[in-house]
Amino acid sequence: MPLDYTYRIRIPHRSGQLERVTGAIASCEGLIGDIVTINMGREATIREITVEVGDEQEAGQLGEVLDALEGVTLLWARDRALHVHEGGKLRMRPAHAVETLQAIRDVYTPGVAHVSRAIAADPTLAARYTTIARSVAICTNGTRVLGLGDIGPLAAMPVMEGKALFYCQFAGISAVPILIDARDPDAFVETVTRIAPTFGGIHLEDISAPECFEIEARLREALPQPVMHDDVHGTAVVTLAAVIVGCHRAGLELDQAVVGQLGLGAAGLGISSLIVEGSGARAIASDPNEASHERARERGIEVVDQHTVMSESDVVVATTGQPGLIDPGEIRAGQVVFALTNPEPEILPRDAVAAGAAFAADGSMVNNLLGYPGLFRGALLAGARDINREMKVAAAHRIAELTDESELVPDPLDRRVHEEVADAVLEAAKSSGSARAERATSLS
Amino acid sequence: MPLDYTYRIRIPHRSGQLERVTGAIASCEGLIGDIVTINMGREATIREITVEVGDEQEAGQLGEVLDALEGVTLLWARDRALHVHEGGKLRMRPAHAVETLQAIRDVYTPGVAHVSRAIAADPTLAARYTTIARSVAICTNGTRVLGLGDIGPLAAMPVMEGKALFYCQFAGISAVPILIDARDPDAFVETVTRIAPTFGGIHLEDISAPECFEIEARLREALPQPVMHDDVHGTAVVTLAAVIVGCHRAGLELDQAVVGQLGLGAAGLGISSLIVEGSGARAIASDPNEASHERARERGIEVVDQHTVMSESDVVVATTGQPGLIDPGEIRAGQVVFALTNPEPEILPRDAVAAGAAFAADGSMVNNLLGYPGLFRGALLAGARDINREMKVAAAHRIAELTDESELVPDPLDRRVHEEVADAVLEAAKSSGSARAERATSLS
Repeated sequence: MPLDYTYRIRIPHRSGQLERVTGAIASCEGLIGDIVTINMGREATIREITVEVGDEQEAGQLGEVLDALEGVTLLWARDRALHVHEGGKLRMRPAHAVETLQAIRDVYTPGVAHVSRAIAADPTLAARYTTIARSVAICTNGTRVLGLGDIGPLAAMPVMEGKALFYCQFAGISAVPILIDARDPDAFVETVTRIAPTFGGIHLEDISAPECFEIEARLREALPQPVMHDDVHGTAVVTLAAVIVGCHRAGLELDQAVVGQLGLGAAGLGISSLIVEGSGARAIASDPNEASHERARERGIEVVDQHTVMSESDVVVATTGQPGLIDPGEIRAGQVVFALTNPEPEILPRDAVAAGAAFAADGSMVNNLLGYPGLFRGALLAGARDINREMKVAAAHRIAELTDESELVPDPLDRRVHEEVADAVLEAAKSSGSARAERATSLS
Repeated sequence: MPLDYTYRIRIPHRSGQLERVTGAIASCEGLIGDIVTINMGREATIREITVEVGDEQEAGQLGEVLDALEGVTLLWARDRALHVHEGGKLRMRPAHAVETLQAIRDVYTPGVAHVSRAIAADPTLAARYTTIARSVAICTNGTRVLGLGDIGPLAAMPVMEGKALFYCQFAGISAVPILIDARDPDAFVETVTRIAPTFGGIHLEDISAPECFEIEARLREALPQPVMHDDVHGTAVVTLAAVIVGCHRAGLELDQAVVGQLGLGAAGLGISSLIVEGSGARAIASDPNEASHERARERGIEVVDQHTVMSESDVVVATTGQPGLIDPGEIRAGQVVFALTNPEPEILPRDAVAAGAAFAADGSMVNNLLGYPGLFRGALLAGARDINREMKVAAAHRIAELTDESELVPDPLDRRVHEEVADAVLEAAKSSGSARAERATSLS
């Protein structure tokens, strides 16, 4: 499994020295990332060079190679991900610091009793006077964690904290990971339902199929706030946005296209359903798992075989988990191809284009982080009762509009993108009747 | 119900003007809090004056009185607690902001998979690489909220956020309120058990007796991390500290004293148990609710009647919820009296002293905020499996030691106090065998 390693090295401060270092890294087949200058002295420079290496062993070998270069000293080498995760990624903080006796009287006794009494008399005031309406719980049982499978709730925590981080930083939402030690849908639904009053939204994450479909459907039915399984709907929104951009790039009209889906797991079902709902395109799909066929048909998707998908589709979206599944010979001239299995796609974009595709992309170009923060921000701003089709379609179109000519999706580190997506979702919540004025909130 | 109201007024900038204003407030029987100068001009000064008034109606009348004073203009008047609660009191934040592509690679894909894999292989690494070991869940069903009774989980949220605020600000702990919509102990215990992997500690709050005793006992048994019902143990620790200081002030040796407890609810049982455990004092108690007697006897407390408590005790602690219960005629010369029912005590301290008590205090002098932040901080620092008797007694003694000569307890706004308490708890966790090295953590 590839890793990012950072090497802090001291090198002579003369022209041509960094070239020797980067050359040595290249000879070990390392992929260079950031190079940061830590110190620049008269004789020597200290730099931190981050390199993607194949595994721990390669990381160690590269360290030895660097340290052996004449005049170069390896000061330390670190596995970046572990180092950055030291201490965890989230911190709860006071909205306003408490520094005086009066502040204690305001936020705790006696003032707090007055606020509790007001909410007891009128529960809609909770949206105004507590953090609830500004928060999302990210709930998982860790049964299907990105590329790692069923690792359980505890080991899923870093992923949940990562998701929460983006909510906090890019959407002004206080997101709280909730690890749920329950595999069976009844227990999971019961637990989330009991703690649901604490949160303005429920984000489901990394739950295995088919349980995830039942869990989401029951929670949507039971709870008054928005519930969304991100692996289904967040991924679908970002993929629809990328498909819109890809079709535009290829000169194809999506609403008149045939869209073919390979793989009907959580992501595949969500993507093809949203494309049908959002564009009116005809969707056909294949999946070796027959249990998935009924769910697809219920959503207006025709189930066929892989050969039919490849030969009849103008747009192909693959989420099969099977690297290399698509043979270049199957590509039809002028097709738009999204091969989304990570980290190795069903077909490399360059191979698809070489085989005649008008446009091709893989999963690394379709960043899931673009979807859920804006979707929930818009839903919370609207006081929405759910995240419905109109809101998802509006988000996808806005993401597509915000994409630069040279890219497939916008930059997820640009906070304005998430705010714009949220605005589109908010408007769609209002026009589709999901918004509730008494629960609408403000987010900073 | 008394409220703090803030009046923003413009008054002439001349000597004697503030006296007129404070005089007018006194004539309305308002109790003045902070006076903050907002603006000082040549002609006029703008100040915000906070006043404790009896109710909304009195607040409005006082506003009219101020506005009617010659030369004084009322700019606005606000219910402080509601105003300060606008938007809620907590915010989840990133431990480190994500600003570059490399940062995404570190905290999300691909780096995060590497961290999850490490934890899956060795679950003790979760303490190091996630926020879990630095967090506490504050769990309530809102069945017994301070002075408000059974108002349910939603209306309890401001109280939970208040508690969380102090954890975050004074103990470096990420505290997360969890509202649990379950009244029955089975459902409550099941829910907390299922979400427990998310948190380093479980703080129970505002749960009605007797259910709270069963819930706490079962969760302590079921979970590997510390579980503490704050209304029982946090209150007991702070009260024991105050009793130690009070006895010292009165020249009484606590370990040779008879301690009498009036009221055996959650707080009363916790206080008298801890005094017995921590000092070896003989404890006697009374409560009209017979169901409480068995629980008291199990903890080494003799159950008698109120008359016996008052006549035989050197130290009396009352937590009955009955204002004015103690007649001054019942006070024995030289007694130390803690009448802790809020906001109106069983006997006013001045009346107890007038009746011969050597020392007397009420609940406003025994601030619960001094206990739980340091208790859980110490427990998390130690990686403790529970918060045991030794840790609670150590905390009480450290709080007593940190108390200024003129006070009954230290200042809860002094972060060093909480850190010192945590140090004492950490040491006691180690010496009593509760500490586990592999779960110990650092807190900032």
